[in-house]
Amino acid sequence: MKKYVSEITSKDKDFAKWYTDLCVKAELMSYGDVKGFIIYRPYGFSLWENIKNYLNNELKKTNHSNVYFPMLIPENLFQKEKDHVDGFNPEAAVVSSVGDNKLNERYIIRPTSETLFCTYFSKIIQSHRDLPKKYNQWCSVVRWEKTTRPFLRGKEFLWQEGHTAHENSIEAKREALDVLDIYKKMGENLLAIPFLTGLKTQKEKFAGALETYSLEALMPDGQALQSGTTHYFGQEFSKAFDITYTDKNNDVKFVHQTSWGVSSRLIGALIMVHGDDNGLVMPPNVAPIQIRIIQISNKPEVIQEVNNIYSDLKNEFRVDIDESDKSPGWKFSEQEMKGIPLRIEIGPKDVENKTVNIVKRYNGEKIKTKISEIKREISNILEDIHLGMLKKAKKFVKENTKKCNNYDEFKMHIKNGGYVEMSIHPDAEEIIKKETTATARIIPFDQPKNFGICPVTNKKAEFKVLFARAY
Amino acid sequence: MKKYVSEITSKDKDFAKWYTDLCVKAELMSYGDVKGFIIYRPYGFSLWENIKNYLNNELKKTNHSNVYFPMLIPENLFQKEKDHVDGFNPEAAVVSSVGDNKLNERYIIRPTSETLFCTYFSKIIQSHRDLPKKYNQWCSVVRWEKTTRPFLRGKEFLWQEGHTAHENSIEAKREALDVLDIYKKMGENLLAIPFLTGLKTQKEKFAGALETYSLEALMPDGQALQSGTTHYFGQEFSKAFDITYTDKNNDVKFVHQTSWGVSSRLIGALIMVHGDDNGLVMPPNVAPIQIRIIQISNKPEVIQEVNNIYSDLKNEFRVDIDESDKSPGWKFSEQEMKGIPLRIEIGPKDVENKTVNIVKRYNGEKIKTKISEIKREISNILEDIHLGMLKKAKKFVKENTKKCNNYDEFKMHIKNGGYVEMSIHPDAEEIIKKETTATARIIPFDQPKNFGICPVTNKKAEFKVLFARAY
Repeated sequence: MKKYVSEITSKDKDFAKWYTDLCVKAELMSYGDVKGFIIYRPYGFSLWENIKNYLNNELKKTNHSNVYFPMLIPENLFQKEKDHVDGFNPEAAVVSSVGDNKLNERYIIRPTSETLFCTYFSKIIQSHRDLPKKYNQWCSVVRWEKTTRPFLRGKEFLWQEGHTAHENSIEAKREALDVLDIYKKMGENLLAIPFLTGLKTQKEKFAGALETYSLEALMPDGQALQSGTTHYFGQEFSKAFDITYTDKNNDVKFVHQTSWGVSSRLIGALIMVHGDDNGLVMPPNVAPIQIRIIQISNKPEVIQEVNNIYSDLKNEFRVDIDESDKSPGWKFSEQEMKGIPLRIEIGPKDVENKTVNIVKRYNGEKIKTKISEIKREISNILEDIHLGMLKKAKKFVKENTKKCNNYDEFKMHIKNGGYVEMSIHPDAEEIIKKETTATARIIPFDQPKNFGICPVTNKKAEFKVLFARAY
Repeated sequence: MKKYVSEITSKDKDFAKWYTDLCVKAELMSYGDVKGFIIYRPYGFSLWENIKNYLNNELKKTNHSNVYFPMLIPENLFQKEKDHVDGFNPEAAVVSSVGDNKLNERYIIRPTSETLFCTYFSKIIQSHRDLPKKYNQWCSVVRWEKTTRPFLRGKEFLWQEGHTAHENSIEAKREALDVLDIYKKMGENLLAIPFLTGLKTQKEKFAGALETYSLEALMPDGQALQSGTTHYFGQEFSKAFDITYTDKNNDVKFVHQTSWGVSSRLIGALIMVHGDDNGLVMPPNVAPIQIRIIQISNKPEVIQEVNNIYSDLKNEFRVDIDESDKSPGWKFSEQEMKGIPLRIEIGPKDVENKTVNIVKRYNGEKIKTKISEIKREISNILEDIHLGMLKKAKKFVKENTKKCNNYDEFKMHIKNGGYVEMSIHPDAEEIIKKETTATARIIPFDQPKNFGICPVTNKKAEFKVLFARAY
C-alpha cells in the first residue's frame, strides 16, 4: 500500500508535480510520441465521455444540432477575419504536401472552426426563416503551444465548439449567456465545481469577438483556470464572410453570431479541485466507476456475497469488483488513487453479520450498512458526497476571494493566491498585469451602482473586476 | 411537390448522379471548402451518431474500452512496419511547418493508427496479466484520395478503429471474427443491410495484416461496397514495435494483434441500398426521425390533436411535427426525400372520425388507425418495416448472386452486375481482375469439400471466391 501511494508527490510539496503524477498514475493519460500530444487512456477518456453525454443532453434540450466539419482549412480562407488570424496564425500546423508531393495550396489543421462555419452559413442562410442556426461540433483542434501540460494545455486537445447565427444582437447575446449558464450548471451538477462567470475585459477577449464570457475555476494553488468561454461576435464575422438574410420587411441584413466551447481542460480542473495526496477524488456524477466492491478474503461465502451485491447494484450504478489477488491494502490504495467515490469492503465477518463497510473516498468516512439495505442507502450516500464535495469547493472559493480597494493590499492578496476583487479604471488592467502578473479573470455580472477612485490609476473606477494569477 | 422531387435524378437513369443528388438534397452533407472534404449536416451526422451508439453499446458488452490517440504521427515512426508504409505513404498529409516556421521533424495526419497503438502497447504491456488489451477509437482520418464521393471515399472520413493485443493467435483470430460478427449483426439489426462476410484474398488484404476479414454489401448498380474490415496481424507489428509479454512460464513472447473498423461509408451503403426516386428510405432503427406528424389543415382542433399525438409518442419514438405553412404535398414530398419511415397525416375529417392515416415510406402502404391505438400500433409497424426492408434487401442479394464454373458465363454475369461465385486457383484472381475489372470480394466461410478445375487457369481450384466489380 505504502509503495503504491508513495509514487506520487505530495500536493503541498510540489503542486505541479503532484498534478502530473496523478494524471499518469491514475491512468488517465499517457504521453504520446510527439511532445505536447497525449493519449487518453480508458479511464481518462470515460471522464470526457461523461462530460460529453451531459452536455449533448443539455444542448439537445435547447435545440442545438451536432455536425462535423472538415479538419483542414485553406490558409487563405483562414485569413479573412483579421483579428482572428492574428490570434491563431503563429500556432497553426500547416499541411503543404502529401507523401513526397508539394500541394498547390496550404491548409491549416483547425485551431478552431469559425471560418468554416462562416462560409457554410453564407451558403445556407437566405431568409429569416432559416434562423437561428444552432450547431455544435465535438472534435479535436491543434494549436502548437510551446509549454504543455496534460489536459490543461496541449498541442492537440479535445473540445466542443458551438457556432450559431441569429437575426439580431439580443437573441445572439442571449445565446452566449444561456450556454454560459449550461456550462455553469454542469459545474454544479456534474463536476462539483463552483465556476464563477462574467464578462472578459476587452484585453482578454477572444480574437474576433465583441464580447467574451468566461467560466473560471479556482485551483488549490491559488491560480484561476479559465474553463470555458462563450463569445458574442456581433456582425464581425458575418461582414467578413458575407452572411446575410432577408428579414420580414424584405431588407437584407447581416446575421449576429456566437461561438462557445469547453475542452478537456475540464478534466484538469476536476483533478486539481478535488484530488488529494492519495490520488484523484471523483464526484459521483462524472465518475467512470462510482463504486468498487473489494473482497478482503477469497472464501466462497465472501465471493458469493460480493457477486450478489454486484448484481443488485449494477443496473443503477457504475460499479465494479476488484477480483485481483492483491492485498486488501493495495486494493484500497488503488481505489483511492483512481478516486472511486465509494468502496464496499466485504470480509468473512461482514458476511456473518450481514453488514458491510461503505467508505467514502472524499472524506474517508465509514458507514456500516445492512447488506439488505445497500441499494437504497447508496443513492443517498452518492448524493451526499456530491453535495459535500461541492460545498467544500465553494468554501475554498469563498475563503480565497478577497475584496479590496487598496493597491498594496491587492498586491499582497495576489501574492497569497486566490481571487481579488477590485473596482478599477480600464487603464489599470495593464499596469496590474505588469506589476503582479495577475490578469483580469472576469467582470462579474453584479456590479456596484457607484464607483470610487481606482487605487491604481487614481482615475474614476468604471467596473469591478475579479483578478487572479492564472493558468 | 413536383418541383421538390424533380430536383433529383432518377435512380435508373444515372445512379451515380442520383446518389450525390440525394446526399445534398436530403441535407445529409454539403461540400466543404477543400475538394474531397465534406460537411456532415445535422441529419447526416445523426445517422453517424446512431451507428456510433449502437456499436459503442456492443463493444462495451464485449469489454472494449474507448480511448483517444494523437492525430499526428512522426513520419519516422510510421516507417517502422514496411508493408504498412507502402500501403499508406502516397496518401499521407504531411505537416512540416507551424505558422511560418519549419519544424525539425515531419508529421503525418493519421491515415490509421496502428503505429501509435503499437508504441503504446510496447510501453504498457509487460505480463500476461496485462492481456488482452481491447481498445477502440472514434475519430477522423486523412487519406489524400484522388477521386472522392460523399461518404464513400473522402480525403477525410469518420470511422472507428479497434486495436487489440492478445496472448496467442487463437484468441486474436477469435477477436477478428467476433467483431466481424458484431458488424454483420449491426447490418441485420440497425441498417437492414444483409452484409456478406468472409476472408479477403492475400492480394486484397490490408497492408500489414496476415488475414483480413471483410463485410461486403451489394449496391443496386450491381457493384459491391466493402463496408468494414477486421484484421488479424499475427506478430508482424509486435515484432516491428517490440511488443512483448512474459507468459505464465516466464517466457518472453510477442503479442498477437488485431485491428478493425467501419466508417462513414456505412451511410453511403444505407443511402444506396434503400433509397428510391423519391429520396432516402431510412430503416426505423437508424432513422434520425422515425415518425413525422403532418397536419393537413391549420384548424385549432387539428393542431390540438397533432399535439396530443406528439405528446403520446415522443418518449418512445423519435418523432417530430411539420408545422410549416407549406402545402401538404410539399410536406409529404420532404418527408419522403428525408426517408422518414412513417408519416401520420391528420386533417379535420380524421379528427372527426378519431382516426389517422399512417403511411409507410418504404412501400407507400397506408394504414388507417384509431387515434387511441396509435402508440401500440406504431411499435409493430416500425418492426414490420424493418423486417420488410431487410427482406427486400436480402432478396436483391439472392437474385444477384450467381454461381458458375465456366469463365465465359462468369464474364457475362460480371458484366450484368452482382456477385459471382466461382472456385479458382489463386493465379486466376489477377487474370480475372485484368480481364473483367471484377475483384475478389471475399472467400466465403462455407467452402466446398472438394474442388474441380479452375476454369480460368485450368489448374486445380483451391477455394471458392465471391467476385464483383466494386466501389
